[in-house]
Amino acid sequence: MPLAPNRQQLDIAAERAKCTFDPSQLTPLFYGGEEKMKRLKKIEALVDSEPVFNRDDRYFLGRTERFKRALPMAKRYVELRNEHSLTPEESAYMKVYIDDYIPIHLHESMFLPVLRAQASEEQLKVWGPLAENYHYIGCYAQTELGHGSALGRLETTATFDVERDQWIINSPTQSSAKFWIGTLGKIANHAIVQAKLIINNKDYGAHPFLVPLRSLKDHTPLPGVVIKDQGPKQGAVSMDNGYARFNNVRIPRENMLMRFSQVSREGVYSKPIHPKLAYGGMTAVRTTLINHSALSMARAVTIATRYCAVRRQGTVDIKTDLETQVLDYPSVQSRILPLLSHSFATIFSGIWMTDMYAQYNADISKGDTSLLKDVHVYSSGLKSYCTKLGADGIEEARRCLGGHGFSLFSGMIDFHRQFLATVTYEGENALLTQQVSRYLLKLYKDVLRNPNMHLSPPSKYILSLFHENLFVHQKCEARSIRDLYRPEIVLAAFQHRAARLILELARAEKAGASWSDLNLECMRLSKAHVQYIMIENFHNGLEKHFNCHANPTVEQQNLLAAIRSVYDLHVFYTMETELSEFLEDGYFSPEQAAWVRQGFKNSLKAVRPNAVGFADCFGFTDSLLNSALGSWDGRAYERMAEMTEKEPLNGEPMTDKNGVVWGYEEYLKPLIYGKAGPYKARGDSKL
Amino acid sequence: MPLAPNRQQLDIAAERAKCTFDPSQLTPLFYGGEEKMKRLKKIEALVDSEPVFNRDDRYFLGRTERFKRALPMAKRYVELRNEHSLTPEESAYMKVYIDDYIPIHLHESMFLPVLRAQASEEQLKVWGPLAENYHYIGCYAQTELGHGSALGRLETTATFDVERDQWIINSPTQSSAKFWIGTLGKIANHAIVQAKLIINNKDYGAHPFLVPLRSLKDHTPLPGVVIKDQGPKQGAVSMDNGYARFNNVRIPRENMLMRFSQVSREGVYSKPIHPKLAYGGMTAVRTTLINHSALSMARAVTIATRYCAVRRQGTVDIKTDLETQVLDYPSVQSRILPLLSHSFATIFSGIWMTDMYAQYNADISKGDTSLLKDVHVYSSGLKSYCTKLGADGIEEARRCLGGHGFSLFSGMIDFHRQFLATVTYEGENALLTQQVSRYLLKLYKDVLRNPNMHLSPPSKYILSLFHENLFVHQKCEARSIRDLYRPEIVLAAFQHRAARLILELARAEKAGASWSDLNLECMRLSKAHVQYIMIENFHNGLEKHFNCHANPTVEQQNLLAAIRSVYDLHVFYTMETELSEFLEDGYFSPEQAAWVRQGFKNSLKAVRPNAVGFADCFGFTDSLLNSALGSWDGRAYERMAEMTEKEPLNGEPMTDKNGVVWGYEEYLKPLIYGKAGPYKARGDSKL
Repeated sequence: MPLAPNRQQLDIAAERAKCTFDPSQLTPLFYGGEEKMKRLKKIEALVDSEPVFNRDDRYFLGRTERFKRALPMAKRYVELRNEHSLTPEESAYMKVYIDDYIPIHLHESMFLPVLRAQASEEQLKVWGPLAENYHYIGCYAQTELGHGSALGRLETTATFDVERDQWIINSPTQSSAKFWIGTLGKIANHAIVQAKLIINNKDYGAHPFLVPLRSLKDHTPLPGVVIKDQGPKQGAVSMDNGYARFNNVRIPRENMLMRFSQVSREGVYSKPIHPKLAYGGMTAVRTTLINHSALSMARAVTIATRYCAVRRQGTVDIKTDLETQVLDYPSVQSRILPLLSHSFATIFSGIWMTDMYAQYNADISKGDTSLLKDVHVYSSGLKSYCTKLGADGIEEARRCLGGHGFSLFSGMIDFHRQFLATVTYEGENALLTQQVSRYLLKLYKDVLRNPNMHLSPPSKYILSLFHENLFVHQKCEARSIRDLYRPEIVLAAFQHRAARLILELARAEKAGASWSDLNLECMRLSKAHVQYIMIENFHNGLEKHFNCHANPTVEQQNLLAAIRSVYDLHVFYTMETELSEFLEDGYFSPEQAAWVRQGFKNSLKAVRPNAVGFADCFGFTDSLLNSALGSWDGRAYERMAEMTEKEPLNGEPMTDKNGVVWGYEEYLKPLIYGKAGPYKARGDSKL
Repeated sequence: MPLAPNRQQLDIAAERAKCTFDPSQLTPLFYGGEEKMKRLKKIEALVDSEPVFNRDDRYFLGRTERFKRALPMAKRYVELRNEHSLTPEESAYMKVYIDDYIPIHLHESMFLPVLRAQASEEQLKVWGPLAENYHYIGCYAQTELGHGSALGRLETTATFDVERDQWIINSPTQSSAKFWIGTLGKIANHAIVQAKLIINNKDYGAHPFLVPLRSLKDHTPLPGVVIKDQGPKQGAVSMDNGYARFNNVRIPRENMLMRFSQVSREGVYSKPIHPKLAYGGMTAVRTTLINHSALSMARAVTIATRYCAVRRQGTVDIKTDLETQVLDYPSVQSRILPLLSHSFATIFSGIWMTDMYAQYNADISKGDTSLLKDVHVYSSGLKSYCTKLGADGIEEARRCLGGHGFSLFSGMIDFHRQFLATVTYEGENALLTQQVSRYLLKLYKDVLRNPNMHLSPPSKYILSLFHENLFVHQKCEARSIRDLYRPEIVLAAFQHRAARLILELARAEKAGASWSDLNLECMRLSKAHVQYIMIENFHNGLEKHFNCHANPTVEQQNLLAAIRSVYDLHVFYTMETELSEFLEDGYFSPEQAAWVRQGFKNSLKAVRPNAVGFADCFGFTDSLLNSALGSWDGRAYERMAEMTEKEPLNGEPMTDKNGVVWGYEEYLKPLIYGKAGPYKARGDSKL
């Protein structure tokens, strides 16, 4: 006979019963559509069926153990990829779902894309198959100890020796050592090394070279190459990010990647025709980071929402003698439910960005580069904003879990540690805001010269600055709190704010401030612009995907209403967080500000009944969540206890069969038996 | 011949040369005075001289290894305490400076204080010496799987058996298992267990009992006691937080801690006279957490400031061909220097709170409990605010370090993980804000009844609400940005804001909102009130400690000016962060808001030249910082490379003498040699 469900199971079942929509209707949104979801769910099942990927003891393993576990995972991953002829999309997802940053990860996500983008057709014919089949295992070596993303400041040199038709790769200083290179430390046998190309003492700037690191025969490091793992990190525990120093290592001239620049046998250098085309890779990665942010936030929301629905603390209901579900406290709602709304906002902007990037790629193949700037700017701005939303929001959600949020069993910590890297890599978040601001400032100056110029939709609002005297007297037209639910009022407010910040930036620049003195203004403006397009994208996506039926069924209407409540929450949360920016030039009145605060509270109430439904809609498996607190069935306390069973401190050799801990005889018994001498604190203060 | 200093060493020396004050003048502020500093510096030297406390390989160790390392540390700690007859203050600091949460930590910081507070004099005579000399090693077992701080909801029972004059300790459910109990999992042989006291089926609520857990002879768990380590956590890696379930464990009646309540041989229960006196312990811990927050922020500031002074990226100076020190970018300053100001603000409030607590204890011994409420409220409010400042601020500072901030070698991660617990324990931060708000609301209602009532200085401003019609028309009197540097203008603004939020809370309550519906208002009010007293305390402390000379020397004037710049930064940062709250009722005009933003930028510029001086002033040793990036001498890049030497992946058995990694034959060679089969992605989308 099955056990009767416990209190927590009853609670979570009650939450599901009161949900006003079918969560499974929303899942494809987060998987990129119905068809793709079906395939990716099969990948999930495949991974879950392989013992090598089992996550049961992951939280107990130290770094060395995680690395040792990752090697068989890497091998099995390649075997499965080959066996099932996985598409690149599927194999990429398999790595995502394995949910450990295994040390070959960057071979396919960095080395191969750069090789394909930068090697000539001839080179690719030779190197491509070798790399695709893991004969070459590669890494991408750009960052150095002293410099990260600034290609112009790299110190590694590649000097041409015209006599022997070779490049001499060298690390002249300690700070020139390659550092942070994933897959380099222990695994890769080849690296694409970014190095200053030097011919006859002339420096042509950084260029990519294919440099063999380890013997293909026995994996020993090649002469002149000093390689090490670079030590423990916040996340990427299983990854061998590495350090490499080159001591005049010689490679053939043909190992320079020659799609864009070439060097002839005689040492004649040819420039690339479109230098900017060489940088497409970062834009692609930033675009994926937007979606990655959405899903990471959703993962935290799933755990936090489910646990806070079954966790009861505080005020007691006299009738039932039950305490209150913590999810019913506004202090908890206000820290978890906005993250839910950010997941939705971010996924819609991720879709928008992915579409734009696809369009850009299609255009480029026809020689049209007009979208280059937009793709660069929006991927930068969204990456900067969304990764910060995620990094901060996941931690805030963790803090809502009480003490148990501090346990790795919560499932909130391991993946967050890994996620924290995203605020830094592929363009540091604060730096990226300068790109966005510079672009907007440029558009503003163009508009002043030509008020009829064409602007793409997300920057059209800049036209309003042409009539500056009219602009500065704009006021928000909301006459009641209801007006703040109208998209045109909301979008106008966000447009006004962003436009005002452009104006202020322009004025400060005109007044003689240097660009680097305007950092803070750039950060503020970039955030304002990105928040605006996030809301615009959320609104458009909602209309396109969920308000698209001529005669909607009741189910469709309920679903639309539910998502709209999340949209409203996103709007009110963002407005409240940034309230001063709507107030400080008088655009909002004090009364309107009060409506915003009230609107935020109302939105929390509106989303609350469906919270567990939304947590379910993301489609995470229990296996991936690996969480005692956030699993589907709500059995949080039992799972917390069950997961302690595998703690190594509880088994041999750390605890013997009588239950006595390692080290008792040597370290504890002397204390207990009084061998550490008597204690008498000094009365004075002399030491 | 010594090596010439490298670029980074030159940079940090130049920073020190331009500092306008002597940093060592400030160090005693953070050590609790000159005399105490001298003693504590000796403790630091003592710890640094003992190999068992060496931190060189700490970042490489997994949890089991950290625990194994912690046992000899614990033993040596007790030996040193005894050998040097350390005072309780000194031995507490020794544990702080060891900087690892060793598994006996809570014996002295929780078990002993509770024993002393709750055991009767008779009981203490017996148990005190046994516990002080580590014959009894104890833990404090309050939290259960299902409940934390709410004593009233604990499920563990202590049922009196009058026949046998014994208590029967029992855990009736899974959620009643004790959980999170530090020192319990493997080490303690005694616990003070909080359990519902039951006599003749009558429940008298939670009371403390001394329960033996393990045999004093051989450390085996006693019959009926199931104990385990509870598994891995975000921090407290070396601590054996544990799980315990009691299966009708019998202890003598006298093992109830009987200072406040008693049960007689016949089973007659006597109530405590002053029930609230039993809760002094949490207040003491919260008070220490304020100082702990200040020092933790200071530690992050030290590392971040030093590294950002030697790290150069971006804009190049044409004359020197040097890039800009990243500390010169406002985007970096705005994220590190406010944390510096928070460290100062927090240490001054920590001193204020410590003094108040000492006064309270002195009063109590004379039977005067009038400070009870203030001590409780201010320790709660400050703990809530300052631990959040620290938890968020340290992470933000870490993100300013570029990629290297993600390495454990940064020295920013291990201690931050531990610090993150403080936002939850000793009262969850969001919950604590309710205590503060409830108190202020009560005072407001008292004022309405009696406008001449006595209020302690930090709440005197509430009197202004008596004339509500005057209050609501208050405006900030600043007529230029210079006025915002005047303390009376600043304090008036913070007082007005806090008072307004009290008024709004009172109105909302009057309008019928339930208390738990007012969570968000409580959080906002508590923060406003605490920010006000932090600024007041900073200002008063600055005057008292640094503006106290009749004829100040130039050095004293420079020191005062330097600290004042940090005070201004704290004020402007806080005002800017909370700008909407000064704007939304019209107290600030748009023009005044613009001055605040400008004032913040000005303050960053004013503090910047002394930034490294301030980083130095906290007095951290390199040994404690354990940071490649933040050590005194600025040799960041060399240290990053040097620290990789000890990475276990780089030595045997993980890498053999030929430089080949563990697992190559089994997992990598098959891939490189083509044994994983050929790869051909499917053209279709079938899986």
